Amino acid sequence: MTRMDTANITAQDLYPTRIASEPELLERTDPVVHGSAQDGPLTQGQLDTFDRDGALVVEDLFSDDEVARMRDRLATLSADPAVRADERTVTELTSDEVRSIFEIHRSDEVFRSIATDARIVEPARQILGSEVYIHQSRINAKPGFTGDGFWWHSDFETWHAEDGLPRMRTLSASITLTENTPVNGPLLIVPGSHRTFVTTVGETPEDHYRNSLKRQEIGTPDHDSLHELIVGQQAGIRQILGRPGSVVFFDANLMHGSASNISPYPRSNVFVVFNSVDNAAVEPFAARAPRPSFIAARDVEPVIPR
Amino acid sequence: MTRMDTANITAQDLYPTRIASEPELLERTDPVVHGSAQDGPLTQGQLDTFDRDGALVVEDLFSDDEVARMRDRLATLSADPAVRADERTVTELTSDEVRSIFEIHRSDEVFRSIATDARIVEPARQILGSEVYIHQSRINAKPGFTGDGFWWHSDFETWHAEDGLPRMRTLSASITLTENTPVNGPLLIVPGSHRTFVTTVGETPEDHYRNSLKRQEIGTPDHDSLHELIVGQQAGIRQILGRPGSVVFFDANLMHGSASNISPYPRSNVFVVFNSVDNAAVEPFAARAPRPSFIAARDVEPVIPR
Repeated sequence: MTRMDTANITAQDLYPTRIASEPELLERTDPVVHGSAQDGPLTQGQLDTFDRDGALVVEDLFSDDEVARMRDRLATLSADPAVRADERTVTELTSDEVRSIFEIHRSDEVFRSIATDARIVEPARQILGSEVYIHQSRINAKPGFTGDGFWWHSDFETWHAEDGLPRMRTLSASITLTENTPVNGPLLIVPGSHRTFVTTVGETPEDHYRNSLKRQEIGTPDHDSLHELIVGQQAGIRQILGRPGSVVFFDANLMHGSASNISPYPRSNVFVVFNSVDNAAVEPFAARAPRPSFIAARDVEPVIPR
Repeated sequence: MTRMDTANITAQDLYPTRIASEPELLERTDPVVHGSAQDGPLTQGQLDTFDRDGALVVEDLFSDDEVARMRDRLATLSADPAVRADERTVTELTSDEVRSIFEIHRSDEVFRSIATDARIVEPARQILGSEVYIHQSRINAKPGFTGDGFWWHSDFETWHAEDGLPRMRTLSASITLTENTPVNGPLLIVPGSHRTFVTTVGETPEDHYRNSLKRQEIGTPDHDSLHELIVGQQAGIRQILGRPGSVVFFDANLMHGSASNISPYPRSNVFVVFNSVDNAAVEPFAARAPRPSFIAARDVEPVIPR
């Protein structure tokens, strides 16, 4: 049975990936910003920045007290044997340290209230121009000294291929819990790359997520395509730096990654992925079965901001 | 036969390492700067900076034309099958790309003339307060996308343990051939760390250099000692950035390293290590046999600057 026989028989695949033998650079056909300044908290200037770069940093959106509470909670969770043994927890490839904890908006009261906080939900609704639901939430903890990097990737490529998000109408809000400095492996983005879909080569292995969450290989762009984006199109690379409590909103198709962290300074962030309710997941576009719902929600439950 | 039976029977080991079961932080007993402003090209301010930080950046010491010539030469050497097959050439652990080429001041005319250039030799003589000879030379090429990092280390630790340099009276001049930016895995230093000798744990394996030049494990400091230097003593971490043609002079005992390079921008440098003629190598302090002379010279041939 091919994927055309399943539920998304009528869903046209605008972003085919993991199919051809050569990568391609496809132009994005979906809008980036759906709302306007009248609709919400972001100014037109902020919306224009998001539209142009695919990312927007808002400094000090959460207070020091709130950040301290989240960090304490993360420390407690990371040390909890039950959490460490949970399938929703991913450890580093090269050590036993916690790398990510998924679905924290369901499993934890502190992070549930953060994930539905109006300060991140309202900008998401404004940019996506609709009600939103949480496609994924996680804490990423990059420990000092032993934090591996994340190779370049577009989140959308995976969410489309493996989770079945049909269109680019999804964004991440990343709340930084630690200072992001040039030396602790900060988020690196290719500004403007959200307008190009880089198709990838290679078929999705079964249960791919078990390895890809530690180190992704399938579904990542090749060197030539990256060189074309960064050097050929002169987009360059930008480090996202900032104080704890800052939030980076970034488009699902923005090319991003990070280098390794050899500093003693840990780097941790809370990620909440908002998808438009009009862009609900269908069958995966390039995988046999959707990933587990703790990684990619299958239910559309509009978030009521608090 | 222990090392006390050999040539350095009278050489007192001021910096014992790879012996004890616990690491220690020892205070440096050797001076850092031996000369003064009257002796050479560096100003007293520059000497003071080197004394305080263990490193000094001099911008634009080599011209664009000279840098272009060195880069061309490096490209030619890296593509030469004879050079790639040479034991003095080291490739990346995770790819076939050239990581380092050693002893280039002997094997190549272009780099021989650079290694003896007065612009780097005279500052070395001034800082070390004597005639100098070349302990080691190499090109380090960190390719774009696939360049692994270098874990934190003090060069002196290895040069003492494995090559037999008795005292801290040695420095590196690193000529940058590419722009060092925050995103292409620049040199990271711990300013002031040259005043502390971090002893390491674990015995030197035979022919250790064959692996250590790709990824060093023995002879590198532990997390707690690094945390104490960087956080406890508030030294912090500094990125060394700069234009091609700049030179970083840094003390042999300065703690340094670099993160991985996931950018498309390569990073390459020419390293020339100058040792005082009064600090010639004796028998290794913590290895059975000295490393090959292409990595660590055994002959003292004072450099005549040109």
